[in-house]
Amino acid sequence: MARYQLILAYDGAGFAGSQRQTGKRTVQGELEKALRRLGWSGKSILMAGRTDAGVHAAGQVAAFDFDWKHKPEQLQKALNADLPPDLVIRDLCAARDDFHPRFDAASRRYVYKLFCDKVRNPLCERYAWRVWPEVDGNLLTETSKLFIGKHDFSAFGSATTPKGATVRTVIQSEWKRLNGLWQFEVRADAFLYRMVRRMVFVQVAAAQGKAAVEEVHHAIIKQSKLPAGLAPAHGLTLAEVSYGSWV
Amino acid sequence: MARYQLILAYDGAGFAGSQRQTGKRTVQGELEKALRRLGWSGKSILMAGRTDAGVHAAGQVAAFDFDWKHKPEQLQKALNADLPPDLVIRDLCAARDDFHPRFDAASRRYVYKLFCDKVRNPLCERYAWRVWPEVDGNLLTETSKLFIGKHDFSAFGSATTPKGATVRTVIQSEWKRLNGLWQFEVRADAFLYRMVRRMVFVQVAAAQGKAAVEEVHHAIIKQSKLPAGLAPAHGLTLAEVSYGSWV
Repeated sequence: MARYQLILAYDGAGFAGSQRQTGKRTVQGELEKALRRLGWSGKSILMAGRTDAGVHAAGQVAAFDFDWKHKPEQLQKALNADLPPDLVIRDLCAARDDFHPRFDAASRRYVYKLFCDKVRNPLCERYAWRVWPEVDGNLLTETSKLFIGKHDFSAFGSATTPKGATVRTVIQSEWKRLNGLWQFEVRADAFLYRMVRRMVFVQVAAAQGKAAVEEVHHAIIKQSKLPAGLAPAHGLTLAEVSYGSWV
Repeated sequence: MARYQLILAYDGAGFAGSQRQTGKRTVQGELEKALRRLGWSGKSILMAGRTDAGVHAAGQVAAFDFDWKHKPEQLQKALNADLPPDLVIRDLCAARDDFHPRFDAASRRYVYKLFCDKVRNPLCERYAWRVWPEVDGNLLTETSKLFIGKHDFSAFGSATTPKGATVRTVIQSEWKRLNGLWQFEVRADAFLYRMVRRMVFVQVAAAQGKAAVEEVHHAIIKQSKLPAGLAPAHGLTLAEVSYGSWV
């Protein structure tokens, strides 16, 4: 028996999230089914983080124990041949016996894409949120800088365990312009539940003049309340989970 | 009664092509259904070009006659509210009474996207063709230049009407590198049936060392035969139809 570590990519549109749920099509469920068809008899795979229904991933990390007689490359090939088109193992290798994709992770990076348009655009809307009116790019940047550092983010999400901590350290938080899209890149030691989608929603509100940058600042330093709302799932991608030290 | 001109965008994945076909979901079919629900009683709309099943469009052009009492913007809004999420009218305006989107077009521009990867990638594969082994970018560029000019392209496609002409003038033909994707941009007065997908297929074969650049050259100047094959539809987008003079 050996532990394997893998990097998963998926288009979130067809999944009820990453985590297994009875009767629903999930990333974990599809991967465990494919493993079982190869003779795996484990109870559950381990995953770095939970992504909601509709959220995509380019670099989700998972691990499992398996008594596989051949090379890791062959395990990756065999699983990929069986997995559905919207889910793939990008990389698979042997890991330490005690490797845990969630507890060992040093940081996570998410990317959120949006574009400004008055009219629908079917070719952009699968992976990006359409917003209107236009956002002010300077206000996006100004607001994004406020998140950087160690803060109590309880105004931006809830703890991932009951009564869990709400303090997180944001290492990177910036907006880039790419092919007519706005792209928010954010990296933190860990995130609260729905934190990135809340962060994007309030930044867009500020950049459209519907909220003051000062309000966002107060929510970060004083945990004051913010306008309720969540950027939609389909704009969000879990880009990367890092296991090296980020300090 | 007045003629209207409109720019359509669609995600081709859910359509059996642009042209109406009995019992199939097509772009023309969906648009005519939406028009009829607004009281339109025409026989058929006009379209600039036919796109195959799976081919996308950012700038397909259509026209129809309609006795509409309100502003064109309101017609666009009413239609868009009724059209499915994968099809939208990006722009709509009044046109000359004799405007014909196909016969009046001076040129068409298509974009084909591809990427090189050994492993599937669900987040790229909706709009780009995955190829492996890696392509040589210099060979892509060298091959693409051969197409420019007025040539008999019969080795690259068939005429759009029985016994129709196979001479076309290619104005632009170049590869760009964009976010890890290869993007082929090609513009001509008009295209033969499946011409762009044939052009892409043989360029990739040359850039992977499976065909000689010389073979492509001969096919262009002497109509000699080329390896059979077609780049898949999902990488192709009809980007633009132009009505100004392109000389």
